[in-house]
Amino acid sequence: MIKNKLKEIWGQGKPSINGWLSVGNPFTAEIMAAQGYDSICIDIQHGALDYSDVLPMFQAMRASGMTLLARVPWLEPGIIMKALDAGAYGVVCPMINTAEQAAEFVSYMRYPPLGQRSFGPTRANFSAGANYAQEANGEMLAFAMVETAEAMQNLEAIAATPGLDGIYVGPADLTFSLMQGRLAPAFDREEPEMIEALKKIVAACKKNGIRAALHCGTPEYAARAIEWGFDMTTVSGDSRLLAAAAQESVAKFRKLAGEKSAVAAETKGAY
Amino acid sequence: MIKNKLKEIWGQGKPSINGWLSVGNPFTAEIMAAQGYDSICIDIQHGALDYSDVLPMFQAMRASGMTLLARVPWLEPGIIMKALDAGAYGVVCPMINTAEQAAEFVSYMRYPPLGQRSFGPTRANFSAGANYAQEANGEMLAFAMVETAEAMQNLEAIAATPGLDGIYVGPADLTFSLMQGRLAPAFDREEPEMIEALKKIVAACKKNGIRAALHCGTPEYAARAIEWGFDMTTVSGDSRLLAAAAQESVAKFRKLAGEKSAVAAETKGAY
Amino acid sequence: MIKNKLKEIWGQGKPSINGWLSVGNPFTAEIMAAQGYDSICIDIQHGALDYSDVLPMFQAMRASGMTLLARVPWLEPGIIMKALDAGAYGVVCPMINTAEQAAEFVSYMRYPPLGQRSFGPTRANFSAGANYAQEANGEMLAFAMVETAEAMQNLEAIAATPGLDGIYVGPADLTFSLMQGRLAPAFDREEPEMIEALKKIVAACKKNGIRAALHCGTPEYAARAIEWGFDMTTVSGDSRLLAAAAQESVAKFRKLAGEKSAVAAETKGAY
Amino acid sequence: MIKNKLKEIWGQGKPSINGWLSVGNPFTAEIMAAQGYDSICIDIQHGALDYSDVLPMFQAMRASGMTLLARVPWLEPGIIMKALDAGAYGVVCPMINTAEQAAEFVSYMRYPPLGQRSFGPTRANFSAGANYAQEANGEMLAFAMVETAEAMQNLEAIAATPGLDGIYVGPADLTFSLMQGRLAPAFDREEPEMIEALKKIVAACKKNGIRAALHCGTPEYAARAIEWGFDMTTVSGDSRLLAAAAQESVAKFRKLAGEKSAVAAETKGAY
Amino acid sequence: MIKNKLKEIWGQGKPSINGWLSVGNPFTAEIMAAQGYDSICIDIQHGALDYSDVLPMFQAMRASGMTLLARVPWLEPGIIMKALDAGAYGVVCPMINTAEQAAEFVSYMRYPPLGQRSFGPTRANFSAGANYAQEANGEMLAFAMVETAEAMQNLEAIAATPGLDGIYVGPADLTFSLMQGRLAPAFDREEPEMIEALKKIVAACKKNGIRAALHCGTPEYAARAIEWGFDMTTVSGDSRLLAAAAQESVAKFRKLAGEKSAVAAETKGAY
Amino acid sequence: MIKNKLKEIWGQGKPSINGWLSVGNPFTAEIMAAQGYDSICIDIQHGALDYSDVLPMFQAMRASGMTLLARVPWLEPGIIMKALDAGAYGVVCPMINTAEQAAEFVSYMRYPPLGQRSFGPTRANFSAGANYAQEANGEMLAFAMVETAEAMQNLEAIAATPGLDGIYVGPADLTFSLMQGRLAPAFDREEPEMIEALKKIVAACKKNGIRAALHCGTPEYAARAIEWGFDMTTVSGDSRLLAAAAQESVAKFRKLAGEKSAVAAETKGAY
Repeated sequence: MIKNKLKEIWGQGKPSINGWLSVGNPFTAEIMAAQGYDSICIDIQHGALDYSDVLPMFQAMRASGMTLLARVPWLEPGIIMKALDAGAYGVVCPMINTAEQAAEFVSYMRYPPLGQRSFGPTRANFSAGANYAQEANGEMLAFAMVETAEAMQNLEAIAATPGLDGIYVGPADLTFSLMQGRLAPAFDREEPEMIEALKKIVAACKKNGIRAALHCGTPEYAARAIEWGFDMTTVSGDSRLLAAAAQESVAKFRKLAGEKSAVAAETKGAY
Repeated sequence: MIKNKLKEIWGQGKPSINGWLSVGNPFTAEIMAAQGYDSICIDIQHGALDYSDVLPMFQAMRASGMTLLARVPWLEPGIIMKALDAGAYGVVCPMINTAEQAAEFVSYMRYPPLGQRSFGPTRANFSAGANYAQEANGEMLAFAMVETAEAMQNLEAIAATPGLDGIYVGPADLTFSLMQGRLAPAFDREEPEMIEALKKIVAACKKNGIRAALHCGTPEYAARAIEWGFDMTTVSGDSRLLAAAAQESVAKFRKLAGEKSAVAAETKGAY
Repeated sequence: MIKNKLKEIWGQGKPSINGWLSVGNPFTAEIMAAQGYDSICIDIQHGALDYSDVLPMFQAMRASGMTLLARVPWLEPGIIMKALDAGAYGVVCPMINTAEQAAEFVSYMRYPPLGQRSFGPTRANFSAGANYAQEANGEMLAFAMVETAEAMQNLEAIAATPGLDGIYVGPADLTFSLMQGRLAPAFDREEPEMIEALKKIVAACKKNGIRAALHCGTPEYAARAIEWGFDMTTVSGDSRLLAAAAQESVAKFRKLAGEKSAVAAETKGAY
Repeated sequence: MIKNKLKEIWGQGKPSINGWLSVGNPFTAEIMAAQGYDSICIDIQHGALDYSDVLPMFQAMRASGMTLLARVPWLEPGIIMKALDAGAYGVVCPMINTAEQAAEFVSYMRYPPLGQRSFGPTRANFSAGANYAQEANGEMLAFAMVETAEAMQNLEAIAATPGLDGIYVGPADLTFSLMQGRLAPAFDREEPEMIEALKKIVAACKKNGIRAALHCGTPEYAARAIEWGFDMTTVSGDSRLLAAAAQESVAKFRKLAGEKSAVAAETKGAY
Repeated sequence: MIKNKLKEIWGQGKPSINGWLSVGNPFTAEIMAAQGYDSICIDIQHGALDYSDVLPMFQAMRASGMTLLARVPWLEPGIIMKALDAGAYGVVCPMINTAEQAAEFVSYMRYPPLGQRSFGPTRANFSAGANYAQEANGEMLAFAMVETAEAMQNLEAIAATPGLDGIYVGPADLTFSLMQGRLAPAFDREEPEMIEALKKIVAACKKNGIRAALHCGTPEYAARAIEWGFDMTTVSGDSRLLAAAAQESVAKFRKLAGEKSAVAAETKGAY
Repeated sequence: MIKNKLKEIWGQGKPSINGWLSVGNPFTAEIMAAQGYDSICIDIQHGALDYSDVLPMFQAMRASGMTLLARVPWLEPGIIMKALDAGAYGVVCPMINTAEQAAEFVSYMRYPPLGQRSFGPTRANFSAGANYAQEANGEMLAFAMVETAEAMQNLEAIAATPGLDGIYVGPADLTFSLMQGRLAPAFDREEPEMIEALKKIVAACKKNGIRAALHCGTPEYAARAIEWGFDMTTVSGDSRLLAAAAQESVAKFRKLAGEKSAVAAETKGAY
């Protein structure tokens, strides 16, 4: 079975960089997979896509040799196992607030006797290579998202869940929850209490021998996160990259063309 | 019937800025339509998409109020008329090399007695508003692409084609053809003979009272094209914007993370 | 953020009229959105469609400015939040039988501190406008379906659920359940006990300051429902409208053409 | 091979009634196929669909036993033969203006030695049954559209084309062309010169032993067309039926609900 | 309502043969439905497909008259009811480990008063015929999968679940679980303890008057299973059939062409 | 740019084996690409698919490293160039009957100065690697189909077309045409005049230094074709492989299960 490259990178003491897909299209997936990320994660939760998009996107990225991940919409076994069967080498599960939920999540990721995943890697057989049944339990990454106040209270117990590979932090939801809705949700938090929370998560992961990952909005913040001890950072995603680059391109032309240019329509879609 | 905004912009003596779609997805279309272009063109010729993508993309961009265009694969009446019925307010037709081809193209764009377009704007009725039959001939833009040595020889005759609204220049193909394959095709040409050709096209357009449009690779070059007299420039497209922005994001992180980062996989997909 | 028009209509003391989509197609959605309903609901539960259809359908209806709703298949958080992220301004959740289920449903509809919705309105950002994070909790409508005998027993408790916006009545299921399967499920019930049940639901809603909505089969019945105090009625849906209109068209021709016409194939598909 | 039911109906001296599909969806196709038409035609020309929709739509209608037809976008051999391979039992080809075009069209519809259709009914084999190669030439209907002034001038020669099965009249385009754009194109013409043209076409068809078909907008007009001698009338189509029925439903509710109802949004999309 | 053919076959004391679909495509579905199986099951759990594929696949197989089944991803009510509404005449539910789960599953399959299925067979109305509401409870087959050690312990209680129609055995998962991961999961087990388990399941089914079904890998093993008392065997599936047949075809050519042939690329994708 | 492997194989004096795709699905494509063919051709002409399927199928097969080809529906430039832009390394063009048609076909396959292909390998850039513009003319294979009596008369002239890489023989159409429709079209012809025609084509190819390819129905016939001098044989295709394997599987079970088995439904869909 083809090895999980993220494990190899981390095993060498290096951090990895992850790309994010919110567009449900195999061509944008193929484009993203050619830009040098170590891994790519398809966002079935908040992305504008579902399983029917995931399969051709995984196929389109297979040739890249990257490690492919999926974030599922919720702790629901049907889609978790379908993502794995489609070829994911790891699953990011949102809203894990207790150790029980973390254990349940892990159980869906592992074949017996470690868990209750059902066997049938119909398509994964093609991308993952031989011996899937024997080796999959050791290659699939299970990332629990810690993104609520409740999860922070149960942080140690979650991090100690047998079989869990790492904690993936969603800073928008975490801020929303910790701040009781007082702050707008966003990435790249600068509030001292948020940075403290992030460092606390890193510490809990290191203590339990698992990986810490952070969803970032800029390479600069991602680099700081690496300094704080994060093993993986998501540094950019397709929909934001596209919107920002297009907006910048239009703005530059408008400026250069000066008075000659038509008045730009008010740009919509800030996100 | 809703008016063609490009005509209004040009009527005010201003140049317009066009966005380009090569990804067959309604969400990337909706993203692009929110960034301030004056018009958006779906590339059915070289884009990774076909008619089945065009319809939901046009629908997704309807709310933006932008003028929507389509480049068709070839001078083939079936797809030209389907693009119009789907809601395009203009068609860019590649490889128009003679005045006869230009006239044939125009005939597919106009209802009788001006042409031979067949009536049935099944979906366009929804986005274009009332009186389509009576007013469409006056709103649909017909852009012939001049992109070969043969077309340059027939430039005056092409530009004089009754009913033609403009000439759209494909600099990659034009270079390929004029240079007999000696230069790599690309946008934003700097060779004196290419710039001369572009200016010659602008002159032919102005002489015949039609619009000149140029496919560019950067806002800087587009701004120069405006100086040369072009009325419309395509300044950026979804697939290139996405690839470049992602590549830059990865590179910045790799640099910031320094030795700690895994060695980047050799980036594939230069285009 | 764009305001929820249903709230405005109701705030003026007027009832609203809702359209229903069971066909998974963006063009039928665009057609329906042009016919004058106040809101349109995509039926992910019993409609012949799923999330992959919902996104382009919402996009195709964006330009109409209508309030867009979705009925989800079940009280499952994954699809509820995906419908909201796709741009729904309200969710109708089937088979809410207890106050606990109603509270759980509401929690999936609201960001902290009111609920546990996860933040990531990737596509909704484009259709809903600015300040989504701050204002969404106040705009999204949460409709619990009361459609079983058990739910009728818990009616008061369900209606009193904090954060619930209304009760949507599914008369087919409600009849099925209340009559213990003795009556065929259908809309527009005339049995006294069913009408009594409907009035009881209206009363519970009014008492708790929430809205009552009814799924109807004809404009006539819908108008009666308004008299009973319902705030919203679903008066027609795409698949039934199409089938009935086509059947009537064929029948009229058969009658007019008389003996000359071929014997009609026995019409299938009564529903 | 399963016989073409239209031929049987006409052989009994009866007219047939045809349904029209402009929506690219297999469920609406299945709905329409259950309403009693003798045949159904998918409109690949002006419909909001293409080949990728045609295949599942034909599959969805196979169980109905109806005769399935397709209108192609233009006289282009690729799509004509693909429609046949997908299972069409007849093709309606637009804009046949000369006998040469009619003969070319017929040649694409027939296997050698009658024509130049390429053999490969990959999917048609499943719906059409055994002996396709031997019998298809005798079952496939070739309908040329006469819809221009030029075609009217060449009417006799077109109707005399060996192998042509009938003439299908597009009244919108025919009016547009005959009236030099002075009248809005529409179905169900009442101008004496248009009715005369229709009768002239019927006469030419009868003289040459082929069928005359008319695209109508109402059952009433279709019944009149039968009186004039037309063998087939298209009496209704999915998108118009849906829009009209929905509009009527909303209007009826608005009227019944009276002052209590919200002011209807101005209905868009008249077509 | 059209009767369930499997019930008729079993009622005659005969076993049935089931085909399996893992490819999400209506054309492969139509091909498979023409090969003589008694029933066909779409695998939404491990197949490379989801609901958006199921609908056109069911439509494409409707004309075959076969009994259509679906395996759902998990005991999740949303997809179970959607599969039924799409036209399934039976559902196979994985990982039923307790009598409580079996009862919950059955409740999702039946309308009141037998269960809690919600009424809305929007598309099933077209394929299943009249009186769906009254007769569906008697026609839909509910198959619980017994495929874990826990389920084997609860076998009697599961088999005794009121309303359950049968037990479907997944030998791969069952082996995985019973052997604590020591044996590779596969079909067609020869270990004595596995055959004993299969026979035990048959006995439990017969005792409780329900059906026993087995997922097999070869006709030979399936025939043995019939001898053991199984009522239904799945004997082949699309993806494996295709891979094996293609591999054999290539190998035969390579052998026949001998030294002249290029060295075959190492065949990937054994599964 | 990645080299065309077929050229390498042929350069070593070896024949190649080609697989055929008629099913429009990326998963069946990925399955087929894992079975050891040297190349795979997607049949856009007679296959149940179109461009919208081709793109994800090419992406799904990219990882296999196979040479990917496409057969287009007709000598139509739009789809020929779109197939190349999507990543095809060769195009098979049907119904080339004259040298002029062959030359026109070749012109669509080559960039200037060799032809008139338009530049824009938007997606091919990702799968084909660097220097596409400079090297594509040397890697893309242009196969003209000789499959009519007229083509046989012009065989020498067609084979001598500058830039043509080979002749691909469609035995079904060729038989149909040569025999004036008297024989059923099929592969693997045994009539002496047909074998003579095949050998004549091989001779014409060898004389002109181009490749001869044959569409076969069995490995046995393909091996004979190699003996006759063919350089490439298509030995099996997805839809036939699947149908035959499923049919055999059912038949074997029916036989083994004997009287106990239900009477098989008459198998439909022989092709």
